[in-house]
Amino acid sequence: MPTISKKGLNIPSSPIRKLVPYADKAKQNGIDILHLNIGQPDIKSPIESIDAIKNIDIELLKYEYSQGSHKFRKNLCSYYSGHNINVSPDDIITTVGASEALSFTMNSICDPGDEVIIPEPFYANYNGFAQASDVKVIPVTSKIEDNFALPSIELFEKKINNRTKAILICNPCNPTGYVYSKEEIINIANLAKKNDLFIIVDEVYREFIYSDLKHFSILEDETFFDNAILIDSTSKRYSLCGARIGFIVSKNSKFIETCMKFALARLSPPTVALIAANNALKSDNKYIDNVIKEYSMRRKVLIGELSKINNIEFSDPMGAFYSIIKLPVKNAEEFAKFLLTDFSINNESVMLAPAAGFYSSTDNGKDEVRIAFVLNSEKIKRAINIIYFGLKEYIG
Amino acid sequence: MPTISKKGLNIPSSPIRKLVPYADKAKQNGIDILHLNIGQPDIKSPIESIDAIKNIDIELLKYEYSQGSHKFRKNLCSYYSGHNINVSPDDIITTVGASEALSFTMNSICDPGDEVIIPEPFYANYNGFAQASDVKVIPVTSKIEDNFALPSIELFEKKINNRTKAILICNPCNPTGYVYSKEEIINIANLAKKNDLFIIVDEVYREFIYSDLKHFSILEDETFFDNAILIDSTSKRYSLCGARIGFIVSKNSKFIETCMKFALARLSPPTVALIAANNALKSDNKYIDNVIKEYSMRRKVLIGELSKINNIEFSDPMGAFYSIIKLPVKNAEEFAKFLLTDFSINNESVMLAPAAGFYSSTDNGKDEVRIAFVLNSEKIKRAINIIYFGLKEYIG
Repeated sequence: MPTISKKGLNIPSSPIRKLVPYADKAKQNGIDILHLNIGQPDIKSPIESIDAIKNIDIELLKYEYSQGSHKFRKNLCSYYSGHNINVSPDDIITTVGASEALSFTMNSICDPGDEVIIPEPFYANYNGFAQASDVKVIPVTSKIEDNFALPSIELFEKKINNRTKAILICNPCNPTGYVYSKEEIINIANLAKKNDLFIIVDEVYREFIYSDLKHFSILEDETFFDNAILIDSTSKRYSLCGARIGFIVSKNSKFIETCMKFALARLSPPTVALIAANNALKSDNKYIDNVIKEYSMRRKVLIGELSKINNIEFSDPMGAFYSIIKLPVKNAEEFAKFLLTDFSINNESVMLAPAAGFYSSTDNGKDEVRIAFVLNSEKIKRAINIIYFGLKEYIG
Repeated sequence: MPTISKKGLNIPSSPIRKLVPYADKAKQNGIDILHLNIGQPDIKSPIESIDAIKNIDIELLKYEYSQGSHKFRKNLCSYYSGHNINVSPDDIITTVGASEALSFTMNSICDPGDEVIIPEPFYANYNGFAQASDVKVIPVTSKIEDNFALPSIELFEKKINNRTKAILICNPCNPTGYVYSKEEIINIANLAKKNDLFIIVDEVYREFIYSDLKHFSILEDETFFDNAILIDSTSKRYSLCGARIGFIVSKNSKFIETCMKFALARLSPPTVALIAANNALKSDNKYIDNVIKEYSMRRKVLIGELSKINNIEFSDPMGAFYSIIKLPVKNAEEFAKFLLTDFSINNESVMLAPAAGFYSSTDNGKDEVRIAFVLNSEKIKRAINIIYFGLKEYIG
């Protein structure tokens, strides 16, 4: 029998989707499932994107340019200039989602055994991309009592050695909802610069901020141009998850050149999807404003409902659309399973993402879950109610 | 300054696209370029695919299932059963082109330093996927004087050691046009089985055969179910290159399970593209029959024209839509550049892919080019004429 690779065996199952078989079984038994486990927005994509797909005028679906069309990258530059980010089309590579952007990045800067430092909890699939490239994730633990703010710079500094290649953060943060301040960004970027490391910032939730905080992008400050790698995507911003259009942006031309070699090998991003993404850029600011307004309301409802439960802790999501909840149970995964297999209210239950998979340290997050507030307010109310009574029954 | 990875530095530029800057310059100077360098068919996609895109009835472009929809995988099973291949939806993972299928495969079976044996010349991007996973490509050289038939099994056997994980072949072969016989397939698969290796077969050109030869798929013979990995794609078969829909098919459930972990990490293939690919499966057989008829005619024209040039050798493409041409020059890349920078007939010139990039052995293929006969007969005639007179002037 031929053998599977060690990395293939070691890559962890996605905590976001690992309970799917239990959810499927519940559905077969007539239970409706409220999906708080996955960041699939229920908000309509921009009409400009949908119309562009419907009005496509081609007879032959050709390869897109490996880098993405010049027109699209130019439109992205206009979008960025509205966010105080000045880049040119040559600084951008279009990718198949932020996922591929992260794969290209790992491959372009890390050889097997190299290390990337990431504050945990972090977006679980970072593990998958790291494992695929045999890169070691070195966690620095952020704490729920600090609302998951950036841990002290000294903690990062201690982890740096000659295998360290980069520090990776997500801002606003999936899965905590934390928004890093300008000061935090500059401090961590300075540490990267001082040690000749890359500072990779995943900014796919750039606009998703629910306070007066202003998002500060890693590419706003020229000081970090050699070190900064911006990971981005149209998936959440424009409810275009199924398009799979992301991008890498960097002023480090040697890095972009290297990523391009990986991009050329896989030929091109999907052509129709790029048309949809390009037309989303033409939607007016009202689209995003309305989206943020809607999530802002959902967040308020979520916090209101969670506050009624007195034996839990939760992070206050200043951005993105996630919160980490610390439950009064030993094993949150078992509780999440219980909700799918043994509990429902009016034939409805909830799917949660066990948070242990968002940590790299073995024992962290076992009593936590991540929830995505991507459902409307009524559903969020019902979902939190189910968690409340579910906990009661589970704890007994 | 942060540093680039060794693999990022080492990954070779795609020979298919590396001369693009020279072609762009020629175009700026008013020269039309006949692109024989890239396998981008000029044949229309199935009307069923284009209509499905235009008639899409969604308001929100959601994630596709990571594995691709069950419906699509079921339709693929029907397609395969028409080719004497009996598989179930669980044996299939939908990927972002055959490119991603190969990346998942490499990652699922190889750790850094592991080896995959491939007869050369081979599809150049195999190098890119191997390099991304730090896998070593071990070449076994096939020869133009044998029309690039499978080298003797003994030559493969000699290369097997304890780091060898798989043998990879492409059937029909890009870049040689060779179609492996049932006997060749069984012999190489037996060698793989005997040594507990995977046998990976890239069959994206399955239908593209220009003789009475019948294509023999690695999955037709149950003997090899544990070892066989089939790489496939809708790109060439249905002129849907821009859709980026490929698939992995295997009866080895441990292997499929492992690939699924990588598939989950990257979330999903592009949703609209999958709809286009799914509807291509509904096109009647006439679509593919007509496509093959057209390429068959082009092949005839190509061979007729090449036969008039007496100082070259070329492979007779029994399948796919490529041929390797051995030129009477020392450095075929220099000649290819010359055609773009210094030669034209009636303001028209030709872009070729230097074949050295399709070899892994350092000194092979330097006097060869690959051409893709993806243009209509008139253009092929003009292109070969340009090569003929270009050679005359270049050799002097």
